[in-house]
Amino acid sequence: MVRPRHDKVSEKTIRRLSHYAMCLRLARNDGTKVITSRFLSKRCGISAAAVRKDLAMYGDFGKQGSGYEVDKLLGNIERILGTCTSPPVIIVGVGNIGKALLESGLEGTGGYRYTAAYDTDPSLVETTISGIRIKHPDDIAREPGISGAIAIVAVSPGHGQEAVDNLVKAGCRSILSFNLEPLEAPDFVNLRYVEVSTELDILTHSMKYGEK
Amino acid sequence: MVRPRHDKVSEKTIRRLSHYAMCLRLARNDGTKVITSRFLSKRCGISAAAVRKDLAMYGDFGKQGSGYEVDKLLGNIERILGTCTSPPVIIVGVGNIGKALLESGLEGTGGYRYTAAYDTDPSLVETTISGIRIKHPDDIAREPGISGAIAIVAVSPGHGQEAVDNLVKAGCRSILSFNLEPLEAPDFVNLRYVEVSTELDILTHSMKYGEK
Repeated sequence: MVRPRHDKVSEKTIRRLSHYAMCLRLARNDGTKVITSRFLSKRCGISAAAVRKDLAMYGDFGKQGSGYEVDKLLGNIERILGTCTSPPVIIVGVGNIGKALLESGLEGTGGYRYTAAYDTDPSLVETTISGIRIKHPDDIAREPGISGAIAIVAVSPGHGQEAVDNLVKAGCRSILSFNLEPLEAPDFVNLRYVEVSTELDILTHSMKYGEK
Repeated sequence: MVRPRHDKVSEKTIRRLSHYAMCLRLARNDGTKVITSRFLSKRCGISAAAVRKDLAMYGDFGKQGSGYEVDKLLGNIERILGTCTSPPVIIVGVGNIGKALLESGLEGTGGYRYTAAYDTDPSLVETTISGIRIKHPDDIAREPGISGAIAIVAVSPGHGQEAVDNLVKAGCRSILSFNLEPLEAPDFVNLRYVEVSTELDILTHSMKYGEK
């Protein structure tokens, strides 16, 4: 079987692999050594046939029937995702959401960790949340390794674009926005959204017109 | 042109329409009466041709060149989305994230509003956040209109399944989970995730292997 190159994996596939990785981490934390495609299928809401096809495509992780080794499978999936060495995550905006994210941490994800947080509020700057000292956004340009970091933007409504412009100028190339407003970034920046509003719209549409 | 039925709109299209709606609300709040497909294209990161195709498909909202009436276009899109009468949104779990969501509100979305919040923590029950009185999850079964509500689940790690089971038993059919762990629900329930972890994985993969 010809294996696809790691740089040719579609977003849809990455999403599935990310789900497998999360299930495998949970299984590993429970002390499970071997899992079945049926287990992954059930936990991830993907057909067992599709799971088996993915696993066959992306590595020799085990045999149908006898199960897959959790550690080996997780290691391989993390290699494909590129998360075996996860980039640092910084937060811009320590309001309600930013603070909640910092306090919740990123346990259970593929080794991501918050390394810095920024806010313009003078009463927050130099305070510490979950071990992270809050800095002023003017310091983002001095953030070491900003070009290899993921920045989460969670600033006040209407200030998202300013935050993105500041990050891009400092060399950041990967941004995840929790702000509701649409933002603009140059083509060489990967700007994504956590879209609560869109998820609500999708659920509403399905509620009104869907089969479910 | 044959218009697709509202119940036959794909999730990908709903996502685009949801983005248009958000841009139109922002434009309306700024007092803008007429917008161009180029404006929507730029703000939503979708090609102008694709925007024009969508708008031609889903209604007679205006003419290319002369622009689209903001109010009329937004009304039509909300009718397709089913959000002209948005369902109530309840929150289960008022920890870091749940509290932040309640405090941030849903302004800027298609009229969604939080109507109830639940937490097992006795020190939270009967307190009020953003005008919403926190109740114990045992009361979910007495929540009026639960079958027509969207429930956001943001409970402690490892308690997501319990929360989902409780909601489903009470009659809830639309759930948006902020919990990291994969959850299970019967087929007749629409269970979706706000996936910070997966978004980080997608950004990381793109950082390591992508063209951006």
